[in-house]
Order: sequence, then C-alpha cells, then structure tokens
Amino acid sequence: MTFDLVAHDPQTKARAGVVHTAHGAIETPIFMPVGTAGTVKAVQQRDLTHDVQAQIILGNTYHLYLRPGLDVLRAAGGLHKFNGWDRPILTDSGGYQVYSLSGTRKIKEEGVKFRSHIDGSSHLFSPEGVMDIQRTIGADIIMAFDECTPWPCEYDYASRSLDMTHRWLKRCIQRFDSTEGHYGYAQTLFPIVQGSTFKDLRVKSAEFVAEQGREGNAIGGLSVGEPAEQMYEMTELVCDILPKDKPRYLMGVGTPANILENIALGVDMFDCVMPTRNARNGMLFTTQGIINITNKKWQLDFEPIDATLGGYVSTFYSRSYVRHLFQSQEMLGPQIASIHNLSFYLWLVKQAREQIVAGTFREWKEKMVKQVMTRL
Amino acid sequence: MTFDLVAHDPQTKARAGVVHTAHGAIETPIFMPVGTAGTVKAVQQRDLTHDVQAQIILGNTYHLYLRPGLDVLRAAGGLHKFNGWDRPILTDSGGYQVYSLSGTRKIKEEGVKFRSHIDGSSHLFSPEGVMDIQRTIGADIIMAFDECTPWPCEYDYASRSLDMTHRWLKRCIQRFDSTEGHYGYAQTLFPIVQGSTFKDLRVKSAEFVAEQGREGNAIGGLSVGEPAEQMYEMTELVCDILPKDKPRYLMGVGTPANILENIALGVDMFDCVMPTRNARNGMLFTTQGIINITNKKWQLDFEPIDATLGGYVSTFYSRSYVRHLFQSQEMLGPQIASIHNLSFYLWLVKQAREQIVAGTFREWKEKMVKQVMTRL
Repeated sequence: MTFDLVAHDPQTKARAGVVHTAHGAIETPIFMPVGTAGTVKAVQQRDLTHDVQAQIILGNTYHLYLRPGLDVLRAAGGLHKFNGWDRPILTDSGGYQVYSLSGTRKIKEEGVKFRSHIDGSSHLFSPEGVMDIQRTIGADIIMAFDECTPWPCEYDYASRSLDMTHRWLKRCIQRFDSTEGHYGYAQTLFPIVQGSTFKDLRVKSAEFVAEQGREGNAIGGLSVGEPAEQMYEMTELVCDILPKDKPRYLMGVGTPANILENIALGVDMFDCVMPTRNARNGMLFTTQGIINITNKKWQLDFEPIDATLGGYVSTFYSRSYVRHLFQSQEMLGPQIASIHNLSFYLWLVKQAREQIVAGTFREWKEKMVKQVMTRL
Repeated sequence: MTFDLVAHDPQTKARAGVVHTAHGAIETPIFMPVGTAGTVKAVQQRDLTHDVQAQIILGNTYHLYLRPGLDVLRAAGGLHKFNGWDRPILTDSGGYQVYSLSGTRKIKEEGVKFRSHIDGSSHLFSPEGVMDIQRTIGADIIMAFDECTPWPCEYDYASRSLDMTHRWLKRCIQRFDSTEGHYGYAQTLFPIVQGSTFKDLRVKSAEFVAEQGREGNAIGGLSVGEPAEQMYEMTELVCDILPKDKPRYLMGVGTPANILENIALGVDMFDCVMPTRNARNGMLFTTQGIINITNKKWQLDFEPIDATLGGYVSTFYSRSYVRHLFQSQEMLGPQIASIHNLSFYLWLVKQAREQIVAGTFREWKEKMVKQVMTRL
C-alpha cells in the first residue's frame, strides 16, 4: 500500500491524498461505508459502486468469523470474491464487537475469551489469531487487535489497557510480518492509537504507533460518548505526532460535522454506521440539513430527497413517497434512505477534497458544518 | 385500452397478444408484480424496469386508500407520479383485503363496512366509492368491486354472493362510465367472474360478464385453497365463454406451474404475491427448480443463483453469499431474492410467449412444469 499526498489546505491541517491498494485507489479524505457481515446493510453492491460511489468498504472480523465463518470465506477465495465487491476492503480487528456484543468476555494478556452472541459458543481472540483471521478474510487493510476503552474511563485502567494494547500491537506486527496473504495480493496492517481522553496517554500511544513505521495508522477509542470537543482535542494531538506521509484513519466517526472537523485536523479516513443505521430509522442527511422523514411536514412534499446529490435515489424518489414507505413500514424506505445517506457522506468527503485542493476548505467547512447539521 | 392478438398456439388454447394502455404496451401472457402499498416490496423502481423487466405492476386499493390516502395521491397527481412508475398500473378493487385483513366487516347490498387494520377507523367500500377511489389512484386498469368467496363455500352462499357481485358490477359500470379519469389519460374497467368452484355459477357469471362488453375481463375467487385441478377446470370453463378478443386476467395466481397451465387454457394476465413473499422466506424459483436458500447444502455453492436468467442479481450473487445473508438476517437477502424471483416469473411468461408464437408451447410447457417445480 502506498499513499500520495496531493494537496494541503493552507489554513487548516486538512490534506488530500490517494491511497493505492491491490484492489484500486482511494481518494482521501474518504468515508468508508460499514459492511459488517459482508454486506452494507440494505445496499446492493452495484448501487454501492454506481450510486453511492464508495471507494472502499469495511468488513467486521467478529461478525465474519462467526458467520459465514472462515471455512466459507477461504473456500470462496476471500471476502472480495464472496460478496462480489472488487474494490478495496478494510476489516476491523473485531475487538470493539467482542467488548460490545458478547455477553461474557474475559480480557487477559493472552487475548480475549468471549461467547458468540449468536449461539453462546466460546472463542478466543488473540493478537496472532486475529491477524490470521484477517489474512483469511483477505481485506486490503487490516487492523491491529486492541482494547477499545469505554468512556468515561479511570486513568489507571486506561493506562494499563494502553500498555497491553501496545504489547498486543507488537505481537500483531510480528505475526503479520511473518505471514503472507492467501489470495496473491498484498495486505497492510494499521496500528491503532488508544489512550482514552488522557493527553499524556494519547501522546505516548501516538509516539509508540508512529515508531512502528507501518503504511498507515489509526486512531481508536474516540466517538464512544465523550464530548465532541474532547474528541477533536485528542485527534489534533495525535495527528500532529503521527507521520504526515501516512494515511490517518479515525475509527467509528461520525456525524457530518465530526467528519469535517476531523478532516481539518488531518484525518484522511473515516467509517461509521451512522448513515446506514440512522437511515433505517428515517433520518436523512441532505446537503441542506437533516430530515426526519417520518414527520408529517413531508407528507405533501413532492420534491426529490436531495436534487443536489444527483444520484438515482436522491433525485428519483420524493420526500412524500419515502415518508409513505416509512409510515407503511415498507423495506424500500430503509433501502432508499441507506443509499441516499451513504451518497451524501461520499458527496461530503468528495466536496471536502475539492475544497482542499482548491485551498478553500476552511471557509467552506465553517459554512457546511452549520448547514448540514440544521434540522429541516 | 386495446388488445391485439398476435398468435394462437395450435395445440392448446394459449394466446400471445399485446395490451395497449395510456402508459405503454404489455406483451401477453404477462405476470404483474404486486405493489401492494405503491411499492413492490424490497424492489427499487429502476430494478423493476431494468432487471425484472416488469411491464405492468399492481397497486392495492384497500392499502392505498388507507395509506398514503387519497389526499396525498390526488396531490401527487396519481399513483404513477407518486411512486415514479411510469408504465401501466392495475389496481384491484380492495375487496379481497377488506375480507382478509379487516377484523370486522359487514357485507350489505350497499357495500362493505369495515375497520382499518391500521387504526381501527370505520370505512365503507361501495361499488361507486371504489370506482371513485380507483379514479383517484389513477391506475390504467381498474377492477370491479366484488365479493371473493372463500373456499370451500356452500352453494347457496356462493349463488347469493354471485348475484350481489353481478348487481355490484352493474353499479360499478354505471359509475365508471359516467365519470372520467382525473389525470388526462384513459382508464378501463375489468369485470370479475366469480362463482366459487360451481360450474353452473361460473358459466352464469362468465356469460353475465361477457355480456357487459368491457375491454378486458377477470376471473376471481380461485387460488383460494381449492385443488389445482378444480382451478384449471373453472378457468377452462370460463375462458371458453369470455370473448376471445379481450384479455383475460386470472387474479392471484400462482405457482410457476399454475401460470403455465392457465396460459394453456387461455389466460393472458396473472398476478401473485408468491414470488416476493416466498423470496422473503428464502425460497428461490429458478429455471432448474426451487431452491430453499437457507439449506446447508448451498453453504459452499459459489455458483450464481441462476445464470440462465442473465439479470444482475441472478448472475452476480452466489448461492453461498445469499444463504449467508439469510442466515445473518440481512435485508439484502430478501432484496436479492425478490428481484430474482420476479425476474424468473417475467422470464417464464416471456418464454411462454415465444413458444406460443413459435407454435411449440405445449411440449415446452409439459417439460417446464416439471422442471421449474423440482426441489433442488
């Protein structure tokens, strides 16, 4: 994997770049739709390519390991072949889901013992095991196995957890560097900066991660409940330490405003379930602001969802019709809303990139943060 | 509306024709996907056009009347404008749903009083009212308001019900012929033959319906639980009486075998929820037979769902992947299965038409009835 920096915004720390992977290029800053179980919920692969214009999607190691399982993924020839998505894929390490979904889990130095949320069966995720699993899934970018601390978090717990995450990172790197991909193309491993909302821990972690000299780096443990200002403070601190010539991935973030603010601080890659999850509840992000499509005010609004976006669902379906679909609990409602919201997120980062290249990002960002978060 | 007969199969009563409506032509025999609440469940309008290659879809008067309601449909400019489907639409009369969905309903000469299954509110559907409602919905083909008798049914009940259905038909015709469409294009009214599974009642009803001289005619009250042989017997009896130069629509039918057998008896138009409803439960109809995609036997089958069909979902997604989607209860599973099954149904009637035109329908039908109903 290589990374070319194309432009720097003169008034912020925002950058525009290109990540090159075995499955094609990714123009940054980029938003990555979340495809938890090998499917971006409710969205067809073709629509993801042509309408959403996604350049890379996420897969989730915890979910894919449990279902369909490694035997199926290996037999398919990896996740790309299994789900038919032939552009880049990133897999998270499964750590976050082990902590949030599994009823009982036990974190030890060796790794994490947990029970499947599906059938209660026992499993162990270790740094080495998770590298092997992600080798089998076959993502282009794979993530280190870490502990994502909850928020708020005691300093002592965060500090001890961080040390373990760092020891785990060394084990991940050792395993990753002593193995090869199964499907004939190169994979790359991103380490993850942790440290909760403690500045000294974040500095320590960013320095440790930077020292590993990997091809890209991630920031985890944010957007877990802390105030946005604390998130931005941590991101800025960490971005200033992480190498400038490597892409920076802020995990699990966030609202359109969060994304724009973090781009301004030097983040290149984002993922979040918000566009698809909120879509399923009838919340539509548009270029003019946020629409709760179930509100009665849209009942007789025959305008398209968002003509500015230009994609099929955003221009073809009226607000009145989409409201009707949600009122009638028709599946087509969440389908349309999911494609629309993802189209918006991809539009937003594409616009951001153009503004960075043009050197006009800051002013545009200040306007857009207000505009896209307005409740319509 | 006009109907051109293009070909007759020499060995059966099957015909190939073209129905011309204000929203375009329909090549018969045809299957009409059911779009109950103004949406063919889980299928985007674009996919219905390009992948399924639907030529006409159904709307349901009962559902559309309750939600989004006539005010919304009128303001939108009719259902075509509301849901963006610009090809022909047929609406049923709502009678069937009044009997099956409404908890309390009272059938009187005047009409049917019922309570909404959504909010319990009281409503009256009369022959005149249902004509007015379908005028407002704006379907190209609208259906008479009838009583669809359950099966089995006492002869006396069926006979009295039929007489009322015929009186209602006269009232429907009077109202329809004394009103005009709201949106500047012509609509047409199809009467419905009833009579349960009693030959004399079916003959009486078919003769009564034929005498009305409408542009097309329908057969209702079948596929409600009776043995397939009785359905075929009634269809044949009725088709022999209904005018040859008008399209014949067999309501609510059926399995792929039912459709082929009824085409052989002279039916031109079909609708059924089976392809979409069964799709949502993981049953896939293919050119080689029926697949229950949740079965373990498909877990490592990386072949496309049905390469013969040629459409996007049928060729892009593997059986293994679709099985995984159903196992994981991912929405994309029902979405893919719905488009696939509808594509199969439209493929089936298109093939039937080609065989009729070629004069080879009977032999092909005998083979296909077995093939497509085989459990794989």
